[in-house]
Amino acid sequence: MVDARFFPSAGSLTLAEIAALTGASIAGSAEAGKAFSSVAPLEQAGIGDISFFDNIKYLDAFCQSKAGACFVRPKFVSRAPAGMALLVTEEPYFAFAQTSTKLYPAPAWEPGISPHAHIAPSARIGAGVRVDTGAVIGEDVVIGDGCRVGANTVVDARVELGEGCQIGANCTLSHCILGKRVMLHRGVHIGQDGFGFAPSKQGVIKVPQLGRVLVGNDVEIGSGTCIDRGAGPDTTIGHHTKIDNLVQIGHNVQIGNYVFIAAQTGIAGSSTVGDGAMLGGQVGISGHLAIGAGVKLVAQSGVMHDLAAGGTFGGSPAVPARDWHRQTVALGLIIKKKPDAQ
Amino acid sequence: MVDARFFPSAGSLTLAEIAALTGASIAGSAEAGKAFSSVAPLEQAGIGDISFFDNIKYLDAFCQSKAGACFVRPKFVSRAPAGMALLVTEEPYFAFAQTSTKLYPAPAWEPGISPHAHIAPSARIGAGVRVDTGAVIGEDVVIGDGCRVGANTVVDARVELGEGCQIGANCTLSHCILGKRVMLHRGVHIGQDGFGFAPSKQGVIKVPQLGRVLVGNDVEIGSGTCIDRGAGPDTTIGHHTKIDNLVQIGHNVQIGNYVFIAAQTGIAGSSTVGDGAMLGGQVGISGHLAIGAGVKLVAQSGVMHDLAAGGTFGGSPAVPARDWHRQTVALGLIIKKKPDAQ
Amino acid sequence: MVDARFFPSAGSLTLAEIAALTGASIAGSAEAGKAFSSVAPLEQAGIGDISFFDNIKYLDAFCQSKAGACFVRPKFVSRAPAGMALLVTEEPYFAFAQTSTKLYPAPAWEPGISPHAHIAPSARIGAGVRVDTGAVIGEDVVIGDGCRVGANTVVDARVELGEGCQIGANCTLSHCILGKRVMLHRGVHIGQDGFGFAPSKQGVIKVPQLGRVLVGNDVEIGSGTCIDRGAGPDTTIGHHTKIDNLVQIGHNVQIGNYVFIAAQTGIAGSSTVGDGAMLGGQVGISGHLAIGAGVKLVAQSGVMHDLAAGGTFGGSPAVPARDWHRQTVALGLIIKKKPDAQ
Repeated sequence: MVDARFFPSAGSLTLAEIAALTGASIAGSAEAGKAFSSVAPLEQAGIGDISFFDNIKYLDAFCQSKAGACFVRPKFVSRAPAGMALLVTEEPYFAFAQTSTKLYPAPAWEPGISPHAHIAPSARIGAGVRVDTGAVIGEDVVIGDGCRVGANTVVDARVELGEGCQIGANCTLSHCILGKRVMLHRGVHIGQDGFGFAPSKQGVIKVPQLGRVLVGNDVEIGSGTCIDRGAGPDTTIGHHTKIDNLVQIGHNVQIGNYVFIAAQTGIAGSSTVGDGAMLGGQVGISGHLAIGAGVKLVAQSGVMHDLAAGGTFGGSPAVPARDWHRQTVALGLIIKKKPDAQ
Repeated sequence: MVDARFFPSAGSLTLAEIAALTGASIAGSAEAGKAFSSVAPLEQAGIGDISFFDNIKYLDAFCQSKAGACFVRPKFVSRAPAGMALLVTEEPYFAFAQTSTKLYPAPAWEPGISPHAHIAPSARIGAGVRVDTGAVIGEDVVIGDGCRVGANTVVDARVELGEGCQIGANCTLSHCILGKRVMLHRGVHIGQDGFGFAPSKQGVIKVPQLGRVLVGNDVEIGSGTCIDRGAGPDTTIGHHTKIDNLVQIGHNVQIGNYVFIAAQTGIAGSSTVGDGAMLGGQVGISGHLAIGAGVKLVAQSGVMHDLAAGGTFGGSPAVPARDWHRQTVALGLIIKKKPDAQ
Repeated sequence: MVDARFFPSAGSLTLAEIAALTGASIAGSAEAGKAFSSVAPLEQAGIGDISFFDNIKYLDAFCQSKAGACFVRPKFVSRAPAGMALLVTEEPYFAFAQTSTKLYPAPAWEPGISPHAHIAPSARIGAGVRVDTGAVIGEDVVIGDGCRVGANTVVDARVELGEGCQIGANCTLSHCILGKRVMLHRGVHIGQDGFGFAPSKQGVIKVPQLGRVLVGNDVEIGSGTCIDRGAGPDTTIGHHTKIDNLVQIGHNVQIGNYVFIAAQTGIAGSSTVGDGAMLGGQVGISGHLAIGAGVKLVAQSGVMHDLAAGGTFGGSPAVPARDWHRQTVALGLIIKKKPDAQ
């Protein structure tokens, strides 16, 4: 089902090779030497495809799937349709991702500086770098080995990119230092002024934004996301943190390592988010708050107070998720008791 | 009131011509041969302008309007100011839109490839296509007849555009196939990786995103909107669907035909939205949900369960709109009963 | 602590000069002739830095700060650590901003038209203008004296920029007239079609959007923000209004003077926002509403009715903030009373 125009397969793997790669064990009607070269979701997979079953919502799809092979948890092995080769593991999605990565590695690209890129003479460009058409690289920019800068992206003076960064098309970067293997998707804006204005009886003035954005290693940032530079402290994003599309990160925000932030979430100035936190979509965090390590926030949560490490929270204003669920239930009961309230 | 620098009028229409065009009937102090060449809102219209009255909020503005002619529902004819020619119809806004379109057709543009566009030799460019300055068109891209690609837009390899598409400036497209007459406003991002990471005891890995984005005919997509490509299934947008600005569409999402999605709404991965649904602004839909055909969602709704076709829902978590209104009323009553609760 | 690569200091100021500049009085262990050339936040400041203390949350940081000098309110003077020179004022943040602006003025830039910019012959470019690489300036555009247009920004035909505007990289502008000293950060989209479709029994048609966007003087607009042009009336932004990142402003919206709008807020079509209003982040305002002057909206508020001038509102649907707090408290009490509700 994979469109080979966009995603050419790198070859094929036998079930035995897949088992070795992923640690899965082979079960069902499986010949260890049988080879597969493509993957597909349960509903669309055919006899030549590898699929996975990891979310109970798709049990019916699993039972009816025509996939030739499928990663599955041990407890669902008995539900598999006849004829499906099973790759049994406690982590079907992870194993599927490993296999997909092997069959469809990220497409290779040729290094080289486009003759239509605009690179300041003082910029230092590493080995094996690609800079695409229309990209603009400012004075004293440092681009590490193996980086790729997309078309029409603008990198302002003195920005530094660690080795192996991939910057999408139409991004803008200023006042920032990126670690290694950072991936920015298209249209990301990093380093612009934070929203800082000082009110007074004499009027309002703009506050100079004198910090930077520091991004750790192996960070991924989604399309349209904006990360403002610090006002004085730096705005920081920790290692391995993954940020989805259209997210807003205000000035001075400090985000830890291994944090996941879903789309359209906003974090106001000077708040901190601890390691391993997981923020759902459209979450809002007010300014100057401390979100503890490992906190989970339900989508659309509105955080107005510090949150203790490890908790799960929901609602706006956000409360412990258990209380939020109870509130939801209680509101449902109230209107049943008062059918003529309106 | 229309600024002729930006919107030159294409000519004029008599009331009789307008009546024929729209099906409205002429009433009030109207001479069928009187010609109009411009339109304006009620408050700003003068004797030479055509206006419309379609929202009861603007009844005062209608009664005091100086518009020379006005589309109006039959029941409001008696409220019209003296001297106003009336164009009576049950669909004043639609009739006004028809008339506006006739008087102010979309501006013509000259076909032609800018000498400052960058087009891969293998790209197939149809007849009557315009590609503006700084646009970058990748290998094997197919651009249908009559398309326009805006300045500094980046179209990656093998993307296909059906005939008559209009792509705004500073967009990015990859891994997508667009139908006919698709309009992308500026800064739209289509086809980037979905937000897919597989957790494991061994750490987290990125899941290859091996699907595409398929966009139907006559779709319009607003500025800054991001549509991620599928992880395995395709992300699909049905025919005639209209999407506003800064909307986020996650991987594998399937949106039906004639769906309207207002600004800043987000739809998480693998959810489906049925034909004719109408989503207000800042709505959030969690992943793996099924939103039935014709569902209406109040602005800022947060959807966490499947929603049955045809219903109207509001609140976060979203409930039937009637219950949501009752909850709002009940909350208002609770705090009246307990003035010292705080 | 300021990174001099990005923000070179313009020199130094003595305490006496700072006092004269800001109106602060000198106290603590201060020599009026002592000079400072850098600023830093409380936690990071050293003996050579000026800092400020303005938010009670940071009292501990103030008490432990190693800053050489600090702006502080009179009532906290007694809490200052030994050896810190104090600059006493009722407006510490404002005074700090004044001082920062003096020490770190906005970086100078050279006027000049990049040989790689694309400027229509009929465009009128003022004196002292800079147009960066890849920018595209359309026919009959007017750019006032002292403007700067960033790289790869696209300015469509007949747009007008007042003197001293600063337009960031990768913006798009059409159908708009900007006042003086307007600052657009990167990736701002102004003037695209509003989201206007007229339904009918015969189907849906696009409504021509025949208005403009008018932006007042001294307005600042954040990255990724979208401002649609009017449908018939103009969309207007008043003087001195400041808009953060990823904000959506619908067609016909009228925003007054000195309005502050935080990130990811959305204002639907035809609503008005009075002078001096302050909108928190992720606020949503429905269409055709009137928000009075000086209204304050808590983050994530959802406004569905007109709001009287001067009030503070919160919640979705938004109610007076006092009621919203009470509702929050009442909900907390309900679930305590019914521990087994779920």
